[in-house]
Amino acid sequence: MAHDEALVARVLGEAREAVRGELERLFAERRRTGYGPLYDVLADYPFREGKGLRPAICFAACRGVGGTTAQALRTATALELFHNAFLTHDDVEDVSEFRRGGATLFQEHGVPAAINAGDATNVLALGMLLDNVASLGVRKALLLLREVERMARESVEGQAMELAWIRREVFDLTDDDYVRMAYKKTCWYTVIAPLRLGVICGAPPGPDAPLDDELLSLLELGHFAGIAFQICDDLLNLEGDPALYGKEQGGDLWEGKRTVMLVHFVRTAPDADRTRALDLLRTPRPLKRADEVRWLRERMIEHGSLAYGRGVAEAFYARALAVDRALGPPFVENDDRRFLREMLRYVIDRIK
Amino acid sequence: MAHDEALVARVLGEAREAVRGELERLFAERRRTGYGPLYDVLADYPFREGKGLRPAICFAACRGVGGTTAQALRTATALELFHNAFLTHDDVEDVSEFRRGGATLFQEHGVPAAINAGDATNVLALGMLLDNVASLGVRKALLLLREVERMARESVEGQAMELAWIRREVFDLTDDDYVRMAYKKTCWYTVIAPLRLGVICGAPPGPDAPLDDELLSLLELGHFAGIAFQICDDLLNLEGDPALYGKEQGGDLWEGKRTVMLVHFVRTAPDADRTRALDLLRTPRPLKRADEVRWLRERMIEHGSLAYGRGVAEAFYARALAVDRALGPPFVENDDRRFLREMLRYVIDRIK
Repeated sequence: MAHDEALVARVLGEAREAVRGELERLFAERRRTGYGPLYDVLADYPFREGKGLRPAICFAACRGVGGTTAQALRTATALELFHNAFLTHDDVEDVSEFRRGGATLFQEHGVPAAINAGDATNVLALGMLLDNVASLGVRKALLLLREVERMARESVEGQAMELAWIRREVFDLTDDDYVRMAYKKTCWYTVIAPLRLGVICGAPPGPDAPLDDELLSLLELGHFAGIAFQICDDLLNLEGDPALYGKEQGGDLWEGKRTVMLVHFVRTAPDADRTRALDLLRTPRPLKRADEVRWLRERMIEHGSLAYGRGVAEAFYARALAVDRALGPPFVENDDRRFLREMLRYVIDRIK
Repeated sequence: MAHDEALVARVLGEAREAVRGELERLFAERRRTGYGPLYDVLADYPFREGKGLRPAICFAACRGVGGTTAQALRTATALELFHNAFLTHDDVEDVSEFRRGGATLFQEHGVPAAINAGDATNVLALGMLLDNVASLGVRKALLLLREVERMARESVEGQAMELAWIRREVFDLTDDDYVRMAYKKTCWYTVIAPLRLGVICGAPPGPDAPLDDELLSLLELGHFAGIAFQICDDLLNLEGDPALYGKEQGGDLWEGKRTVMLVHFVRTAPDADRTRALDLLRTPRPLKRADEVRWLRERMIEHGSLAYGRGVAEAFYARALAVDRALGPPFVENDDRRFLREMLRYVIDRIK
């Protein structure tokens, strides 16, 4: 089943454009009133073309419950900024070399400037959320801040789980271990928070709209969709066209990143293959041999680990779709509501 | 002129104790409901004995305008957490080895875990500030968040200025250059924000108390006091007893940190000394020779650079005192108000 490519492309494109305009306004103001060179560094990642998935989900959720693009503009922009702050630090932590088709920020500006740039990007995002007070009122502004605090907390906890695996060289993981980590690290800030923030922005005002049930359904939907997204993102890293994808092919293997595919291989491959793979995975990146990385990638394909990962992703997609079908009011059936459903398939089908 | 040591020690001690209790409650809750190992790492710096200067200023400012300790408890704790987050990242950025009498966090747990721990500490602080809604109401809670956003923005801009000097090997700096940087990097989160946050917490509620004039005076007071504090902190690094001070003696020279004393020496020392000093300062830390670092420290003392720095600090102290004397309502004359004045002298006199 293919997704509605035109609809998905349109909503993603409009979201990118809206956020880009808001970011240009913000950076121009900060350059004028603050220490300019800092904001030159900060502006790097946000203006490299990303998918804009998070802002698009936020806008669509807002309009899907009857809100306007303007109501979600600052929040969607803040989400994009938090995402960029997270990537900036994540790239230092994982010693990643490529991001959105270019060198990572720390490779261009050094580790100290990159850590500080990530911190500064978080501050910009917080400022954006505080600006919501004027347009959305204090109640919604505070609800949104609470939601973002939860999102950030889940992300750092997920990150801590993954970093502990790396530091202690843990590779014997089950799918459940992986899902617990990715729920925190990926699902919250990629799908759950964008959905919930959008609904808070767009919902009718007043204390008679507590939204608790809807927000709980969106947590479930975002959980399932987020896992499907992350597995497919990791599959792209293994099989994608680097020119489209913007990262090096097999970069995750160089980094030893735990993915559903890799932990499947370690769990189920013949002993000799597992031993050879673990030797490679425990070798520090600069000492890894390219032919060994190629061997691992090919063996994972032959062994069926990539097919296995795709199957797990499809199962999570099906669960997400079931939750999506049960969503009722305050959602109305419009293009934005349809985008949220099509987006579930898009994250499975996408090639970049 | 000596400060009232008993009063300062009492207010600092009570502040440390109050914040420690709140932190213990917070960490116990997060360990129970979140990913425990992350919070074990996070709890490291906050439970090493610091001065507790920032929370003490915040509590004193709150009670100095008629508020209670309880009104400022979450905000003072959040300040301590933001401070710890900043130190955690700052130590990675400066490759510092010692902090509060122990190894720095990144040396114990690695750079990735340290970056993530700093991020997570910021999230905890944000959560604390959001908890203010229940006790202080939405208006004050949002004012406090705005203030913290400004504080964090100034800090990352100051940090960016300093990092640019390091990366571009800039040493020809005036005192004004230094003061502009330290105003952002140090004054805001060490004195200005603690004062202003405390006053917001403690001030009478209601829209009839806009506080704008008072907050402006506190910005001036905190600016002058913060510069005096930072210069004396840097003097302690050069002359302090490492056993009391908790950092290595001359560690700033190993790191090439720009201080009023160092930039004075570079600006005014005879050519041969300046050349030798710049050679040393441009040498990466692991390649620096201990005898050369000792030489520089001794030449700075002989040349009068430390005495010069102390003079600049005294001048800023005098300016802070003049602003302090002009402060009127909503401040009342009580022990907390007296602490804020004594604290100005304390930061000059302290030996650890």
